[in-house]
Amino acid sequence: MDSRIREHAEVLVDHCTDVERGDNVLVTGGPPAEDLLVAINELCGERGAVTSVSMTSERARRAYMRAVDEDDIALNEMGLARIEAADVVIGVRAPENVTETSDVPPAKSQRRSAENKPIQQEHLDTRWNGTQYPTPAAAQKAEMSTEAYEEFVWNAVNKDWDAVRGHQAQLVDLLDDADEVHIVSGETTDVTMSIAGNVVQNDYGEHNMPGGEVFTAPVVDSVEGEVLFDKPVMAQGREVTDARLVFEDGEVVEHSATKNEAVLSSLLDTDEGARRLGELGIGMNRDIEQFTYNMLFDEKMGDTVHMAIGMAYQDTVGDGNERNDSAVHTDMIVDMAEDSFIELDGEVVQRNGTFRFEESGVE
Amino acid sequence: MDSRIREHAEVLVDHCTDVERGDNVLVTGGPPAEDLLVAINELCGERGAVTSVSMTSERARRAYMRAVDEDDIALNEMGLARIEAADVVIGVRAPENVTETSDVPPAKSQRRSAENKPIQQEHLDTRWNGTQYPTPAAAQKAEMSTEAYEEFVWNAVNKDWDAVRGHQAQLVDLLDDADEVHIVSGETTDVTMSIAGNVVQNDYGEHNMPGGEVFTAPVVDSVEGEVLFDKPVMAQGREVTDARLVFEDGEVVEHSATKNEAVLSSLLDTDEGARRLGELGIGMNRDIEQFTYNMLFDEKMGDTVHMAIGMAYQDTVGDGNERNDSAVHTDMIVDMAEDSFIELDGEVVQRNGTFRFEESGVE
Repeated sequence: MDSRIREHAEVLVDHCTDVERGDNVLVTGGPPAEDLLVAINELCGERGAVTSVSMTSERARRAYMRAVDEDDIALNEMGLARIEAADVVIGVRAPENVTETSDVPPAKSQRRSAENKPIQQEHLDTRWNGTQYPTPAAAQKAEMSTEAYEEFVWNAVNKDWDAVRGHQAQLVDLLDDADEVHIVSGETTDVTMSIAGNVVQNDYGEHNMPGGEVFTAPVVDSVEGEVLFDKPVMAQGREVTDARLVFEDGEVVEHSATKNEAVLSSLLDTDEGARRLGELGIGMNRDIEQFTYNMLFDEKMGDTVHMAIGMAYQDTVGDGNERNDSAVHTDMIVDMAEDSFIELDGEVVQRNGTFRFEESGVE
Repeated sequence: MDSRIREHAEVLVDHCTDVERGDNVLVTGGPPAEDLLVAINELCGERGAVTSVSMTSERARRAYMRAVDEDDIALNEMGLARIEAADVVIGVRAPENVTETSDVPPAKSQRRSAENKPIQQEHLDTRWNGTQYPTPAAAQKAEMSTEAYEEFVWNAVNKDWDAVRGHQAQLVDLLDDADEVHIVSGETTDVTMSIAGNVVQNDYGEHNMPGGEVFTAPVVDSVEGEVLFDKPVMAQGREVTDARLVFEDGEVVEHSATKNEAVLSSLLDTDEGARRLGELGIGMNRDIEQFTYNMLFDEKMGDTVHMAIGMAYQDTVGDGNERNDSAVHTDMIVDMAEDSFIELDGEVVQRNGTFRFEESGVE
């Protein structure tokens, strides 16, 4: 077995979910990830945990979803009972075809998500982690060879995450002390927002592997200015390019895109919260050097910031601050590598992708 | 998809488990059986059932079992909770390597079985079925090409099971009325036993697919005579050939084998019940024409009878009759195609494999 797979398993079992003796560990993933599932199971055995392994079948799910009558879609009681008994859930994405469920009617998928919300809730109550296995299909989506994509995934995943936590904590400290964030990139992005009273999170890979971002929620009505998202936005299965949003009092008052503008419009029209920001994130994983059409990686890319329209995560909103609520949460990315800066309360903390606390180093 | 796979799925969903609207259906199987799992899911969707699909990984199980300390092996609470919520369980064997767990210490496997007995019990309380998918590894075990084995499996599975039920019921009726069974084959097998008061079961594929046998339990102390089992017996992962047992008052008083006699001895020494018979079965699936080292098929082979040493199934033992109890249940097969007969209370009901009720037909 590739030694990088064993390292990946160690990161998941020891760093991300801290598996211990007696833990009930649920491990799910597509069949192409079987090597990783084997390595995870071996480690869980060594730790004295109990494991339950389920490989998923997107083809079976698609066949079911197309055949079933929408009204017969109900909560999966078996899945709920199982996850209620789990202490840890490790989920490995390993697609054989990333568009496998593209011909399932969206209304049925929405109904399924709604019915299975209790499973999602129980999932969040476990020590959970979601990660990626470098399958040929995922490599194809990233427009890379399979071998290059393997290198990409394992470079982003297999590292010293305690060191990452320490490095990112420097930015967390700066943001904790700040009220106003000002982000400028080229001639196209110039936006300010308050984060006063909200909570800054250090993502060092507990729930997402790879991790590597620092994120919080903007104060809902505080966003002012315009943003051009240079990287494609994936929404409703389509690619929106050069999405541009103009904010007044926190609300999107103008928008455009060079491709699939209608998708962007429909997204913004989902509900009241969809026209406001729910997240500001700053990508800090320098081993993610290219865009791969996979938000698990893209939002952590070094030299980028991302903003999500829609729902704000509960753990980023301070007591007394309003939490933006919405059925959507769509992340959109701004490249900060050149001709760009981030100011906190008028002081520059990042210029052209380099943080102030990195300047003294040799990097 | 091969139309025989869709037929197999229909047999499982409609005939074996009678899936209906609102049923919770758990579907498990190895990844090589994904086509069959897809077809099962599509049908369950059409019926309005809820499905949970888990593909199994023998490699992950082996890795876990080798790594875990024997004392840390515990009940899989996640698996138990899930099966408690299931109405129907369809399990598809689809090995990629039938010896995948051959280097797991037997003591650990026994511990695992013992700890997970509650799961086995819940499983028996569902509408369950176990079936086989024709993988290359299973074909190899059967010493057949993959294509010939596919033909073999689907010939045995895809048929009119209501007609099978009717055909087999003729033998059930004869056995129901009988007290003493006398089985003779060549010079090597001549055994009598009572089945008085015990219950005769018609296996037309509810729990095993393929089905195709009629079986009951011998009265524990009634077995007298000798039996040479012509077909290899698989026990403790090894092949025992030409196993020969001599019975007095129901107990094995003499035994031999031309290969792996020590395995046979150890099997008989397991416990008190291991020296007595727990089952008499008569194979009636004429589409199973060859031995494939897979008891799911072998015991249903036409022109054979089988006897199991060890545990008797609860549903074959009449009220007031003793049930043979044992940790083992090992089926062993006698070829009845030539120079053989079965008598019930002194009347011949089968000669050289042909039943009395078949003689008038053109078969």
